[in-house]
Amino acid sequence: MTTQTQSVTAVVAYPPAEPGKPTLKHETLTLSQLRPQAGEVLVRIIAVGICHTDVYVGGLPAEAMSYPSALGHEGSGYVEAVGPGVTSVAVGDPVLLSYTYCGECDLCTDSMPIYCQKFNEENIGCVSKVWTTEDGKEVGGKFFGQSSFASLSVVDEKSIVNVKGLADNEEDLKKYCPLGCGLMTGSGAVINVAAAKPSDVVLVTGLGAVGLAAIMAAKIQGCRAIIAVDRIDSRLAIAKELGATHTYNTSGLDISSDSYATDLAAKLKNIAPDGKLNYAIDTTGVLPVINAQIKALSKRGKLIQIGIPITNATSSIPLDMQDFFHVTKRMETNFLGDCLAKEFVPRMIQWHKEGKFPFDKFIKFYDARDAAQALEDMKTEVIKPILIH
Amino acid sequence: MTTQTQSVTAVVAYPPAEPGKPTLKHETLTLSQLRPQAGEVLVRIIAVGICHTDVYVGGLPAEAMSYPSALGHEGSGYVEAVGPGVTSVAVGDPVLLSYTYCGECDLCTDSMPIYCQKFNEENIGCVSKVWTTEDGKEVGGKFFGQSSFASLSVVDEKSIVNVKGLADNEEDLKKYCPLGCGLMTGSGAVINVAAAKPSDVVLVTGLGAVGLAAIMAAKIQGCRAIIAVDRIDSRLAIAKELGATHTYNTSGLDISSDSYATDLAAKLKNIAPDGKLNYAIDTTGVLPVINAQIKALSKRGKLIQIGIPITNATSSIPLDMQDFFHVTKRMETNFLGDCLAKEFVPRMIQWHKEGKFPFDKFIKFYDARDAAQALEDMKTEVIKPILIH
Repeated sequence: MTTQTQSVTAVVAYPPAEPGKPTLKHETLTLSQLRPQAGEVLVRIIAVGICHTDVYVGGLPAEAMSYPSALGHEGSGYVEAVGPGVTSVAVGDPVLLSYTYCGECDLCTDSMPIYCQKFNEENIGCVSKVWTTEDGKEVGGKFFGQSSFASLSVVDEKSIVNVKGLADNEEDLKKYCPLGCGLMTGSGAVINVAAAKPSDVVLVTGLGAVGLAAIMAAKIQGCRAIIAVDRIDSRLAIAKELGATHTYNTSGLDISSDSYATDLAAKLKNIAPDGKLNYAIDTTGVLPVINAQIKALSKRGKLIQIGIPITNATSSIPLDMQDFFHVTKRMETNFLGDCLAKEFVPRMIQWHKEGKFPFDKFIKFYDARDAAQALEDMKTEVIKPILIH
Repeated sequence: MTTQTQSVTAVVAYPPAEPGKPTLKHETLTLSQLRPQAGEVLVRIIAVGICHTDVYVGGLPAEAMSYPSALGHEGSGYVEAVGPGVTSVAVGDPVLLSYTYCGECDLCTDSMPIYCQKFNEENIGCVSKVWTTEDGKEVGGKFFGQSSFASLSVVDEKSIVNVKGLADNEEDLKKYCPLGCGLMTGSGAVINVAAAKPSDVVLVTGLGAVGLAAIMAAKIQGCRAIIAVDRIDSRLAIAKELGATHTYNTSGLDISSDSYATDLAAKLKNIAPDGKLNYAIDTTGVLPVINAQIKALSKRGKLIQIGIPITNATSSIPLDMQDFFHVTKRMETNFLGDCLAKEFVPRMIQWHKEGKFPFDKFIKFYDARDAAQALEDMKTEVIKPILIH
């Protein structure tokens, strides 16, 4: 381990001043352990995308999260050292980072590791104390097995996708870092979960990185119509550029009205060609928007719920079972597009090289020192901020 | 066509005296057309199972259904004559009957014919006038392409499964007739829709023929635990005999209580080994029972909704989206177990021959003249009444 690698800077999350608003500080840290342990890889992080999950987790109250911690789960970088038993990467390999999992529970072995019984423990807790601050506080790491808001991190081998031969220079790593989470989630929802066909009509609500990845994937699948919905015109414009055939701005509807879900459903059915709406991909988490999509689905249609539901007065939606039954509808919560990162990330890189997945149209680079500003900008114009360490 | 085949007796449905209670009359009819047309087959019906869908449709008000009509959609019999272009059967072949479909819409060609865009028109309407009563009324047929409540019926070739070599005598045909609907629906839900594995825990609510078929299929799949729920002890006993590892009688809970869904969910979670509940198969259609199952599902669990929802004060259930999301749940409406009858019926016959699908434990034969009594008996002890013409 070189002296250079010991110098770590990181965006550290402290308990939020008010719920839902992360408190982030850019600090110098020291690694608490000298060498990676079994199954661990020391990665010099080059860049890291910011995802709404970082905002969500960094906004959790102190009792629900281990602070201080380094978040970040869309990292890229180079391997600095490998722990015992690590076989998938070697020192110097370029890597993209994704989620981790226990690998031992029934869902990891029988189903898929995304639905690991210990997913939250393994990905969210930040209970591993990886660094120490200058004033001696221990800082939690291993967020999604990676905590890539730090410039040098101890990463689970399971989180690593070796991209040697696919992304060999720093510029590629800076650009490709969001592939392991948001972009995979949206495109996987269309390709793996919906398995959308050219005859299908796909609706996407919420045009962040996940939603826009879904739009691009629906175009790759050659879907008959792709309907993009958001409240921000600039996002609708980029969705159109990326493949949306129809757009709808919901800001004209009154979200506080009791008839919002019914009204929005009527608009969506009206936009859908021949009333056909096979897949609705929700990235908003807004309850009446979710309900509107269920109502708007056509026969055998499916809602794919990706956005974390937002609870205000209630956490329930009134689900009309007559409609759900007689129109033979389906709905599921989906994490990470049912993607195995090691398989799916290379596919996305290939699409990008072929010009079919131009996600660089909506990324924006920030110095890691400006993380708080990047979070602020995400609320409006900036879709996928990427921090450079 | 022989003189013998012209003599038709049938259980004819007239507008119900009160909603939900079919008015059935056993009558002598005359076929309105002399020969089967293109794609049609004239079948001498030997036997027909009664399914709750017959009760549901026969209970529809006069404005929602074409009366008088012959219902019946679990028929078996022998081919008497074939229309032009019919290739899958020949005169004299033994057949079991199932649903029909248009074969031309996007869902028939891209998905599966069960979700045919014209499923209701093709299966429910009874708009084809197949017979005439002695007093000159036209009687609708082609219910599920078959209307097997008549002893001689014009059947869509698409509804026909040729069972030559599988069920060659009348005794087999009498026994096997329900395979084309209820038994296929329940076992298909477990085998095709859930694709249940030995590590899975399966819950089945409502122990009619569909529910009990699901229990037998879960046993065939070697599921770790099979939980059977009903309000009638004799049904729980037969479920146990067929493979249920756990049973629960809901009659001790107060269905009128606001906390019913939560209370039942708690009971179900408690019964489920290690709290694991991977698939819930609802055949009851009772809204709070459906909601209880969604609440009780464990991670990545799925509700498979088969029972037609019953609307009293409301048709909605309050779906807790936080729970649905964070426990990564799934739900879908399912028709006919996603089975293609021509493929799945022979599998069920094979299981029956191997002793793995002993559905004859819960069938009871009735003379077709006693159809009204059979419907009455279905409310309590009799699970699958079969009418013999």
